[in-house]
Amino acid sequence: MTGLPGDVAAVALQPADPGWEARVRALYASHGFLALLGARITDLGPGRCELTLEGRPDLCQHDGYYHAGVGTTLADTAGGMAAFSLMPAGANVLTTEFNVHLLAPAIGEQLIARATVVKPGRTLTIVSADVLARRGAQLRRVALFHGTMMRLDGERK
Amino acid sequence: MTGLPGDVAAVALQPADPGWEARVRALYASHGFLALLGARITDLGPGRCELTLEGRPDLCQHDGYYHAGVGTTLADTAGGMAAFSLMPAGANVLTTEFNVHLLAPAIGEQLIARATVVKPGRTLTIVSADVLARRGAQLRRVALFHGTMMRLDGERK
Amino acid sequence: MTGLPGDVAAVALQPADPGWEARVRALYASHGFLALLGARITDLGPGRCELTLEGRPDLCQHDGYYHAGVGTTLADTAGGMAAFSLMPAGANVLTTEFNVHLLAPAIGEQLIARATVVKPGRTLTIVSADVLARRGAQLRRVALFHGTMMRLDGERK
Amino acid sequence: MTGLPGDVAAVALQPADPGWEARVRALYASHGFLALLGARITDLGPGRCELTLEGRPDLCQHDGYYHAGVGTTLADTAGGMAAFSLMPAGANVLTTEFNVHLLAPAIGEQLIARATVVKPGRTLTIVSADVLARRGAQLRRVALFHGTMMRLDGERK
Repeated sequence: MTGLPGDVAAVALQPADPGWEARVRALYASHGFLALLGARITDLGPGRCELTLEGRPDLCQHDGYYHAGVGTTLADTAGGMAAFSLMPAGANVLTTEFNVHLLAPAIGEQLIARATVVKPGRTLTIVSADVLARRGAQLRRVALFHGTMMRLDGERK
Repeated sequence: MTGLPGDVAAVALQPADPGWEARVRALYASHGFLALLGARITDLGPGRCELTLEGRPDLCQHDGYYHAGVGTTLADTAGGMAAFSLMPAGANVLTTEFNVHLLAPAIGEQLIARATVVKPGRTLTIVSADVLARRGAQLRRVALFHGTMMRLDGERK
Repeated sequence: MTGLPGDVAAVALQPADPGWEARVRALYASHGFLALLGARITDLGPGRCELTLEGRPDLCQHDGYYHAGVGTTLADTAGGMAAFSLMPAGANVLTTEFNVHLLAPAIGEQLIARATVVKPGRTLTIVSADVLARRGAQLRRVALFHGTMMRLDGERK
Repeated sequence: MTGLPGDVAAVALQPADPGWEARVRALYASHGFLALLGARITDLGPGRCELTLEGRPDLCQHDGYYHAGVGTTLADTAGGMAAFSLMPAGANVLTTEFNVHLLAPAIGEQLIARATVVKPGRTLTIVSADVLARRGAQLRRVALFHGTMMRLDGERK
């Protein structure tokens, strides 16, 4: 996702708030839509978040693949959590834009989004996420997500 | 959305299949995820489609706004239907990529996506969609969607 | 580009600085790359900007069409000027992201970008632009651009 | 850029034409706009391409950074070459869409784009590119590019 070749300067992912993990988990728990999808946090670190859900017919489109909106919801939320993990206490986070490239049919028992902060910033944080489908032992990348997360301090854009 | 100034050549939106409407409605009916969201077709024409859903807490994110994934699902599906309406009988449709700009908090009793074909093509069709939130008498544009829909003839990308 | 149907609330495009026009023209004049391309401002208003250039072989790609990077440069710059026109005196403007959909071969005597502010904001302004190619009497839309412009007040992202 | 974790299935990047390298270099040589920018191929392999140019004032925007259109041109062209390297003899390549996230001021003696095929396909190939600025010994990632390249067989979209 963001593996940089050795000759390129790395970007440090440093939480500004020692209580970042509890803050991220509380934020996640307040997303009604993620509960509807049955998604849960399966990995969490400073500047990264993985969400996973189990396949269900009512998460699919006409071909029986996961609807692109499901993978997008996972990726956008995982990206928001990854960005939020680096923000100071008291901040709020909002997505301002994203794009998605669909790479392969999203089919399998689980759908997973792994998000990483590409570039943290005082106001804007750029994140990327891989959407993966697990089918038996195989984990296949089915979509790429890139987006911008904005830090808000008690006010709206 | 795609209102072109008078000096720019317009693009014709002509269905290739006289039975396009039944074909679009049947395709829509097979989307389990749209049923989960409670969305329905509220306008349909050659190269255009509008979907509408009613607000529910389980469609929201942490601030109580519609989750960006909900508006994206509506816009992507409406865009797919708009593109599909122009395709010949026997074709299938698949999204290959899209992007979304979030313009304002998505809050209100209804969420609506209005999609239009920007550029039909033999293989690729470019669509755009406005995502609108209705709050009382006011209809506000809350997101912009642009994407690529691919025609498939019994085979996958 | 951004023609909204009559039932959707319009967004007001109001300059914050009465001296906006001189400020935009001075900013434009400092772009060495636009001079290299031979582009000039052909329309300017609060929240909108049009740039035009004349065709040359050294602006083309392998098929003899304008290179996508030329249209993108025009659209990005026109979008930046459109956003900047609404910003207060003393502000600087920076693009944070954009996307481009290529609709048709960019061929003709002139290449034109018409940009408009879709959503002004205190920090972020969303802009869209049509890239048009003029071939004889015909003006054809060859690309769509959407992007985010950030206001800076003497500091960098 | 596209370093996948070990548990995700890799995508094979296999040229279809043993004469791919000469074909890519000939295609590149026919881009008038890249010559105007002074860019050259500095690395080339199956499914990957690196382009490099030297800084000049007439490649800059108002702050003295490389104009976003310059980095986009490099990335789009490198991505097209990476995709083209895997296509059969007789094919043509066309960009259909792309997006760019700007991460840091593009300043330095050289601007470099490193593109890689993310997902090859019969018709569509998804590519990503890092845009890097070299400043003394430091190589810094200044932009991310993702786009779709379309294979054409003697016909246009």
